[in-house]
Amino acid sequence: MARKFNIAIAGATGLVGEALREILPGRDFPAGDVYLLASSESAGKRLEYGGKRLGVKALEDFDFSQVQLVFSALPAEQAVEVARRAREAGAVVIDCSGAFLSEPRVPQVVPEVNPQRLDDFRQTGVVASPSPAAIQLARVLHIIAGEAGLEGFHATVLEPASAAGRRGMEELAAQTARLLNGQPAEAEHFPARLAFNTHPVTGTVLDSGASAAEVRVSLETLSVLGERSLPVTITVVRVPAFFGTAVTLHAETAEPLEVERLNALLAGAVGIDAAAGEAAGGPSAVEDAVGSDQLLVGRVRRDLTRPRGLNLWLVTDNLRKGAALNCVQIAELLLKDHL
Amino acid sequence: MARKFNIAIAGATGLVGEALREILPGRDFPAGDVYLLASSESAGKRLEYGGKRLGVKALEDFDFSQVQLVFSALPAEQAVEVARRAREAGAVVIDCSGAFLSEPRVPQVVPEVNPQRLDDFRQTGVVASPSPAAIQLARVLHIIAGEAGLEGFHATVLEPASAAGRRGMEELAAQTARLLNGQPAEAEHFPARLAFNTHPVTGTVLDSGASAAEVRVSLETLSVLGERSLPVTITVVRVPAFFGTAVTLHAETAEPLEVERLNALLAGAVGIDAAAGEAAGGPSAVEDAVGSDQLLVGRVRRDLTRPRGLNLWLVTDNLRKGAALNCVQIAELLLKDHL
Repeated sequence: MARKFNIAIAGATGLVGEALREILPGRDFPAGDVYLLASSESAGKRLEYGGKRLGVKALEDFDFSQVQLVFSALPAEQAVEVARRAREAGAVVIDCSGAFLSEPRVPQVVPEVNPQRLDDFRQTGVVASPSPAAIQLARVLHIIAGEAGLEGFHATVLEPASAAGRRGMEELAAQTARLLNGQPAEAEHFPARLAFNTHPVTGTVLDSGASAAEVRVSLETLSVLGERSLPVTITVVRVPAFFGTAVTLHAETAEPLEVERLNALLAGAVGIDAAAGEAAGGPSAVEDAVGSDQLLVGRVRRDLTRPRGLNLWLVTDNLRKGAALNCVQIAELLLKDHL
Repeated sequence: MARKFNIAIAGATGLVGEALREILPGRDFPAGDVYLLASSESAGKRLEYGGKRLGVKALEDFDFSQVQLVFSALPAEQAVEVARRAREAGAVVIDCSGAFLSEPRVPQVVPEVNPQRLDDFRQTGVVASPSPAAIQLARVLHIIAGEAGLEGFHATVLEPASAAGRRGMEELAAQTARLLNGQPAEAEHFPARLAFNTHPVTGTVLDSGASAAEVRVSLETLSVLGERSLPVTITVVRVPAFFGTAVTLHAETAEPLEVERLNALLAGAVGIDAAAGEAAGGPSAVEDAVGSDQLLVGRVRRDLTRPRGLNLWLVTDNLRKGAALNCVQIAELLLKDHL
């Protein structure tokens, strides 16, 4: 009989928590006891997991010694403290909050790219799952780098409302409905109106003028690629979509790389769909990516002016491969090879 | 008494035509007789111009010898033929269709950047007003180039529904309303659903994989800057906004350029607002740009990894400075110095 692991999902009521509750039983994850954790206001609420209704337990006083594995889909402020408690109780934590960005002993892992770093979980007991944009970039750049070397890249990330959680989605929906009814739509959660608008995602802005979101995507991507000091330019913009992170990528290779060759490599890569949305000129979140476990790549083309430049358009479901699915893949590898 | 010029607005019923009908009288343009032209289906319709209601005339059989100046806000397919007829009748044409991109004798003009090229109108009788993104890029890159030299740039352009005309706007509005009412929302005009989605703007795709929209922005920007062969990477994406073109720009300078110095240059430039939207982390179309004649610039920052790289966020009203206002500024200079 296969080993079973008791697991906790911290942040089970959130969007990534919801995706984890879908994906784990859908992939027959060998879960023994499953604990759904959230803030005490949500305790007692019942949520679905694998066809059963489970009661939500309060995160604040949960005894982590009951589990071997914790999926942490919490805001960064809470994630560090919960990881500390889980570790003290002997559980391994898989975290997608970005809270461990400046802790080099915590490996940033995209299983298709750098599974060899997983064993570093032993140093702190934590494995980090990068942000959706970093996962997309790392997967595609890893393929490019392996074939032709990588000298740098530029990306503009189009982030949907759900990247800001349920509150972000509710704000976009409410603003849109108010505008269609001829009513004013003030920004509350976001710094400017999002409905029918685009604005930079800044949050904390560093002295350099880069935003925390941009630094996060840059550092995570480099970390997953195992690069230290590649030139990287990232701009993150919020767009009025609910789901799906899209990225415009310009990659500069060390050696020439033909578009046909790159297309063949992408078509052969597990978890990448390089044909979706072709009839529409390229894949889009709503038509192709949302609900899919694939990373969609389109518009692969040589740069018109830079001989070793390649331009691509990437789209993924930010809650699945961008977050929950990547966490589950990390867990599956941990169980298989390391625990 | 000041000279008056008889003018025609070809495409008067469209979005840019509407903006021309607002801007020309608002700036006391010295118009004598004003002719509003559109396809024969719209002939007889009455539209406002400077507080008067004028009847729309059929473009097909209009006698262009009645006017000295034609503002052409037509689709590219029609623009070439109308320009030919206007020229044969002795009128000067200011065209914003992009139809003259491959005609080097037609100057591409942004009055604040390359007014010296205006006199080239004599070669063909046509002056081209570039696309909204090219106008934004040329204005800002001209300032950067003048101070520190320019070695190349990368830009992602976020294009709103109105860039595809009234039909584009109607499709976004209808799709959004249907979705909020729980009904399906199929794409008709656009190649994929636009409501709550983003997708590449492709249209015609060249053998290289670049889209016509991308080639247009690249060539127009270089032409206005008077550059021939700078490395330029452009990606154009459609976003579910009605108005306002936003651009993420990375510029590579020849010499170091301090952010403070660039901010001072931008703050001192006529028609540029480098302070709008600061509290929100940067300007946005809806909150700051729509209805404004200014080009808004925000998030001016040094690239973290490229010592001579600068990153900026640009927003403008695509129908005003992005199209109609630029045409009117061209006309004002033509009348003042060349006609």
